[in-house]
Amino acid sequence: MELLKERIRKEGRVKAGNVLKVDSFLNHQMDIELFNEMGKEFKRLFADKPINKILTIEASGIGIACIAAQYFNVPVVFAKKAESINLDGESYVTKIESFTKKRQYDIIVSKKYLSPADHILIIDDFLANGCAVAGLIDIVESAGGTIEGVGIAIEKGFQCGGTLIRTKGVKVESLAIIESMDDVNGTIQFA
Amino acid sequence: MELLKERIRKEGRVKAGNVLKVDSFLNHQMDIELFNEMGKEFKRLFADKPINKILTIEASGIGIACIAAQYFNVPVVFAKKAESINLDGESYVTKIESFTKKRQYDIIVSKKYLSPADHILIIDDFLANGCAVAGLIDIVESAGGTIEGVGIAIEKGFQCGGTLIRTKGVKVESLAIIESMDDVNGTIQFA
Repeated sequence: MELLKERIRKEGRVKAGNVLKVDSFLNHQMDIELFNEMGKEFKRLFADKPINKILTIEASGIGIACIAAQYFNVPVVFAKKAESINLDGESYVTKIESFTKKRQYDIIVSKKYLSPADHILIIDDFLANGCAVAGLIDIVESAGGTIEGVGIAIEKGFQCGGTLIRTKGVKVESLAIIESMDDVNGTIQFA
Repeated sequence: MELLKERIRKEGRVKAGNVLKVDSFLNHQMDIELFNEMGKEFKRLFADKPINKILTIEASGIGIACIAAQYFNVPVVFAKKAESINLDGESYVTKIESFTKKRQYDIIVSKKYLSPADHILIIDDFLANGCAVAGLIDIVESAGGTIEGVGIAIEKGFQCGGTLIRTKGVKVESLAIIESMDDVNGTIQFA
């Protein structure tokens, strides 16, 4: 999606350790007009899928998912993160590892909001090592739901997440795929 | 706002310790159609204010804020929560205490996304003891910005948050104000 790539070129800052800061428009300050264009594009890419719910994860996936949901006319569920929880049997839980935060945590969705009748589109801001998305897929599968696809704003194509998820047979559509980036001279190459 | 009150009557569950669960439509599963009606109502209530940015806090304020932002044509900034952070001079930070989680944490906004030129509408899902909103006001004031108002989905009128914030001279508009609720028989009375 050219509009998103342009924005990344203009405002993205590459930091050491393969970190891309896009907090001026994507995940701290949020450009809602851009999110609407992204939502329309997700709808175009998944137009043939019988999606009845969008699943995302707190916090930075929520804004993108909510705006996109307007084009699908569906509700959004967001998975919650917790350092550790007491299992009460009322939630689906899986363990994931954060790429940026270098720590493990549980992600949780109430059993009330996922069922075998659900056809889920997963939406998130970044796909890097794929842990968050793999965790969300795991939760949908635990509920007996169907994964209709994964919509990502920015995929780091040089990390393994995209391959990991596509190898499962899941349709992944990333609006911008970064092939390489360099924190010394600040360059970003798209795939 | 009658539509929201109806939904609370129908789906809200009162739990011990003055906890109101509305996770079927507000803060775990999110009804985006309802959020749009709430967004329109916030616009009506703050139509005379020169708002150029909406500020909220992760995680459950983000969806409401993003949908509402479409009616104001402004970006959203969300404050991040952290157990404790190393101050780097690049962020506004304040300490708040969570009512539901009974613990203290820091909330953080990058200095890049708040300035003296900003006219801020704060949006959040709940107003109870007012700590989160007071923390957000504190951050906007640190940046030299102007608070144009606070828009809340559900205010617990029997807790002190509403009085605390209104006493500061800030316009607070809550779409539903709960006067009392009872976890034994599950009743909810609106103001």
